[in-house]
Amino acid sequence: MAAKEYHEIVPGAGLILSWQLKGKKVLLVGGGPVAAGRLVNVKDADAHLTVICPSSGLCGEMKHRIYTENVVDVYHDRLFGGASELDAPEDGRRFDMVLTAIDDAELSRSICHMARARKIPVNVADVPPECDFYFGSLIRRGPLQVMVSTGGKGPKIASQTRRVIERALPENIDNAIERVGKLRAKLREVAPEQKQGPKRMRWMIDVCEKWSLDQLSDMTDDDMEEILKGWKKGTVPTYRQVRGIKWKIIPFIALPTAKQINKSLFGTCPVVGAISPWLSGVLGATAGAAVASAFFVLRSQTRHSLMSVP
Amino acid sequence: MAAKEYHEIVPGAGLILSWQLKGKKVLLVGGGPVAAGRLVNVKDADAHLTVICPSSGLCGEMKHRIYTENVVDVYHDRLFGGASELDAPEDGRRFDMVLTAIDDAELSRSICHMARARKIPVNVADVPPECDFYFGSLIRRGPLQVMVSTGGKGPKIASQTRRVIERALPENIDNAIERVGKLRAKLREVAPEQKQGPKRMRWMIDVCEKWSLDQLSDMTDDDMEEILKGWKKGTVPTYRQVRGIKWKIIPFIALPTAKQINKSLFGTCPVVGAISPWLSGVLGATAGAAVASAFFVLRSQTRHSLMSVP
Repeated sequence: MAAKEYHEIVPGAGLILSWQLKGKKVLLVGGGPVAAGRLVNVKDADAHLTVICPSSGLCGEMKHRIYTENVVDVYHDRLFGGASELDAPEDGRRFDMVLTAIDDAELSRSICHMARARKIPVNVADVPPECDFYFGSLIRRGPLQVMVSTGGKGPKIASQTRRVIERALPENIDNAIERVGKLRAKLREVAPEQKQGPKRMRWMIDVCEKWSLDQLSDMTDDDMEEILKGWKKGTVPTYRQVRGIKWKIIPFIALPTAKQINKSLFGTCPVVGAISPWLSGVLGATAGAAVASAFFVLRSQTRHSLMSVP
Repeated sequence: MAAKEYHEIVPGAGLILSWQLKGKKVLLVGGGPVAAGRLVNVKDADAHLTVICPSSGLCGEMKHRIYTENVVDVYHDRLFGGASELDAPEDGRRFDMVLTAIDDAELSRSICHMARARKIPVNVADVPPECDFYFGSLIRRGPLQVMVSTGGKGPKIASQTRRVIERALPENIDNAIERVGKLRAKLREVAPEQKQGPKRMRWMIDVCEKWSLDQLSDMTDDDMEEILKGWKKGTVPTYRQVRGIKWKIIPFIALPTAKQINKSLFGTCPVVGAISPWLSGVLGATAGAAVASAFFVLRSQTRHSLMSVP
């Protein structure tokens, strides 16, 4: 019976990871639109990027990234020159990742073999068996990253799903995460001991539960100092407790916007996620009609009783 | 000006990947709840898993996975025994990935060094500098995987965001992906040539655009044969074109359920994603009240005019 407590293992997935490329060397062979997509992915992740592709084969975006934005660290305007490229003789530091996005299936396969012989993770665009990892459909909002993968079953459905998720994400989520990250760093300064790790984590969870996303994204550095005063007492002051005084002093500045009122009234309601706009509209219409009907019926009854008075 | 066409590079991200572990060997050192989470991740991804941990250190879930479910391929009931473990002398095949989730910071660090010296990707739970990759907050629905990462800034907000996304995902998304994957495989049988790749992709995109998610998840193998007849003509028949005949023959079987009617009427409406249940409810209430008021006002006017007739 206890077995039912645990999620069942469901084979057939990939292991979705956030690979850390800061200070790592990535080789990209190719210059078309697929290569341009890979370039953005790895430069977003702070990789040191080398591109090999004859300039005649560069698409518009690749030219822009290389010549205008200047984000490619090393660019070789020529064809791939063989296995020794992977060992990067110029600085003796082997590449940490190899990506190819070229039409030449034969060359792709041989680059894949060279990389695997050196234990370098490799991805050959559009050839799953020659990939140690796949890319997915990505959302990036500052510190937030969401990745949608269908394990290669449906790239189009993956991007449709990505759009559903994009619409569902709260507008200020990136700000809220940024602020929480900053509070977390400040907490680590106040309570740096390793053994306090679990207590710190519990306290940060309390903050995220007591403060709504809007309140978190609105958290100033001064607010953080106020909140941190609760750390030693083991409490987390609420947004109102922290902001209470300011409301009295400068109410015209602290007056909430219409959006904030809407969020504070409805934003934390548990049915919001469950009820559909259609059901809500129909229920609303019914309720509106009922109230108006009751009003008119009562009014007409009042009139009747008035009229019946001689 | 053309520059504005392209997304800006925003450094500071990780490279989110779907790592392929089928046929790969993973070593997990540790037996607590964090280790149990890692175990599920890598076994979902079909890894060959070795666990090293004294049985006295196994948590309930780990015991269940090892002794009841029997999903761990090799289990060593002892402490980690040194660098030679990574070379896996029993079968001579070095591990492809190493994960540790133990309290011993010193031992974790030394395992990390051993793995890096062998170019084996490594993750030491809770110690970012000793991780070549991070884990994130995951959603799994059959072939669909969604991963939320905040780059370590806010684990709690990551799981809150994951729940927002879970609520937003269409109920039948996993079925739709499964069916589209099958159609794609059948298409590859019909048109196997490599050079037809882009045309195949374009045609699959058309299918996903012409068929709603509900229709896709409802697609039978017979439907697929019908749809594939469109491939040679370069067209994609709609759900109605494919299902039209059946409706006439066996209408009582093909009769749509209330849910399907709801979806076909409203499911593809572009405002559904944009309008909130609250706004919809308020608009509905206003409309309902207006209609009811108009009814009563008209009725009372009719009465008045009747009464005014002598």
